[in-house]
Amino acid sequence: MLSVAGKALRVSGCPRNARSIATVVSGNKTSKLVRDRLQKEVCKMQELEPGFRPGLVVLQVGDRSDSNLYISMKLKAAAEIGIDARHIRLPNTASEDEVLHSIQSINEDARAHGLIVQLPLDSIRPIDSGRVTDAVAPHKDVDGLSSINAGKLSRGDLKNCFIPCTPNGCMELISQTGVSVAGKHAVVVGRSKIVGAPMHDLLLWNHATVTTCHSQTSNLAEQVGRADILVVGAGKPEMVRGEWVKEGAVVIDCGINYVADETKPGGTRVVGDVHYPTANQRASFITPVPGGVGPMTVAMLMKNTVQSAWRFLQSQRSDG
Amino acid sequence: MLSVAGKALRVSGCPRNARSIATVVSGNKTSKLVRDRLQKEVCKMQELEPGFRPGLVVLQVGDRSDSNLYISMKLKAAAEIGIDARHIRLPNTASEDEVLHSIQSINEDARAHGLIVQLPLDSIRPIDSGRVTDAVAPHKDVDGLSSINAGKLSRGDLKNCFIPCTPNGCMELISQTGVSVAGKHAVVVGRSKIVGAPMHDLLLWNHATVTTCHSQTSNLAEQVGRADILVVGAGKPEMVRGEWVKEGAVVIDCGINYVADETKPGGTRVVGDVHYPTANQRASFITPVPGGVGPMTVAMLMKNTVQSAWRFLQSQRSDG
Repeated sequence: MLSVAGKALRVSGCPRNARSIATVVSGNKTSKLVRDRLQKEVCKMQELEPGFRPGLVVLQVGDRSDSNLYISMKLKAAAEIGIDARHIRLPNTASEDEVLHSIQSINEDARAHGLIVQLPLDSIRPIDSGRVTDAVAPHKDVDGLSSINAGKLSRGDLKNCFIPCTPNGCMELISQTGVSVAGKHAVVVGRSKIVGAPMHDLLLWNHATVTTCHSQTSNLAEQVGRADILVVGAGKPEMVRGEWVKEGAVVIDCGINYVADETKPGGTRVVGDVHYPTANQRASFITPVPGGVGPMTVAMLMKNTVQSAWRFLQSQRSDG
Repeated sequence: MLSVAGKALRVSGCPRNARSIATVVSGNKTSKLVRDRLQKEVCKMQELEPGFRPGLVVLQVGDRSDSNLYISMKLKAAAEIGIDARHIRLPNTASEDEVLHSIQSINEDARAHGLIVQLPLDSIRPIDSGRVTDAVAPHKDVDGLSSINAGKLSRGDLKNCFIPCTPNGCMELISQTGVSVAGKHAVVVGRSKIVGAPMHDLLLWNHATVTTCHSQTSNLAEQVGRADILVVGAGKPEMVRGEWVKEGAVVIDCGINYVADETKPGGTRVVGDVHYPTANQRASFITPVPGGVGPMTVAMLMKNTVQSAWRFLQSQRSDG
């Protein structure tokens, strides 16, 4: 068990006289540990197979500035680890057929062990994103978003699929706390394809009793109050209030929301889906925003890519 | 809304002086309504396409007597509706490759709109049942057990997949009660591929707040006590006690357990996973065992087969 980041320091917005009791689980530190480990794994691969590098392709349609930022973070992390990451950009005039055709060529490219399609797609033409994510070969689908990988995860076949990066990162952070998941009551707020739904699956198949809440949940505060482990991916700034949180709970916040703040140079600051200054008074462990789940997502993408490369090497060796 | 089967009668084993308050939701009656509707749909298909019949293939490996019984029930239901059902039996010496080869030929057979593999496989040779269910073409997978269909269901793409028959039947029974699912707290006991896991998905995407309990749940009675809608698929006779049930809950019992009973001709009787004589004192609606969920499963298989045949006819027409 790796050590966590230590006791929380008082954060901005926290009442001056309140005692901060939650231990902060740092995604910056944990993701660094993961990336260091992956770098060593890549070196090991190269000892076995000189010149070999895990290959990742990031396919982008259009030119959204937020996507550009995320892609550059992925490329940077990949380069540091020794992953050969390529960025392929299609124009925002690309049709669905053109996108599917690109995916097909990358599926057939033996150098690409991982392929992700940066979402949302930014095309002026109608593209079915479900068809696009399902076109990625399941054994290269390192985002874990294809129906086949989702089906395996949801039915408990965790060793035989790719796990979506954000919930995978949350599990890594929970594991950092030393709190065991089995037999606990976990509550997930949100049911999106990339966060809430696969998070439910991971907690369930790690043997928690899991409740999923969402926009139509009628008694959210009450449900949240029962969670030994709370994971929030709702996309609503500071929606979960500290007073809802069970005393001693582990709180994992997947939210990244920009809210107006005139005191900041850019006029905004980033907050999570949990009201941190009050939640950290009740939780035993809590992830900060930023620096919590966010950095883990990129690290887990790298982990899936390295895992895919290992499988490729093993299949080559067993073929040989 | 169709009418339910009326107020519960006192059942064997129920305390003599207790008042039975739950309304019994009859799977026998509801499944008959479904099958009658499907029969009319098949007639309508034949008006559009003279001589057309929905086609279902049941592939069996080996000769288990329980499988033989279930298959005969499916073939009989199919015949009554006008579905052309064929039973293909491979010997219990069949290898995985032979099973996969059979599936491949049925996948390519245009007369088969549905293909199910009767589980468990009864072969003296090792066969990976996951590989077998994933070999069924997703558009013919009327049991809804392939990873692709499971993935779509678990991520909320309900209109674009086949839903496993038992949970689909449970939803039909819940709908019979007139109780709306959205915003309710549903609790599912069990997380199997054919009952609990897809049941969670169906309740979630019909907008309930859903808790899944299982063998490692530490406070089952407490979790069950919170359920407005309770679905039990645990495979343990009368495990859920009446006193656990929330007053006024809808209770759906997927269990089929044979327990010793010397007073019965065969020395056994069938009970569910819920202790019916006490649960029906607290529930508002309850399914009996037998005659509850059981008959719905076969009816939903027929529904999926007819749905697949409609899709086939529509694709033919749009091709023409």
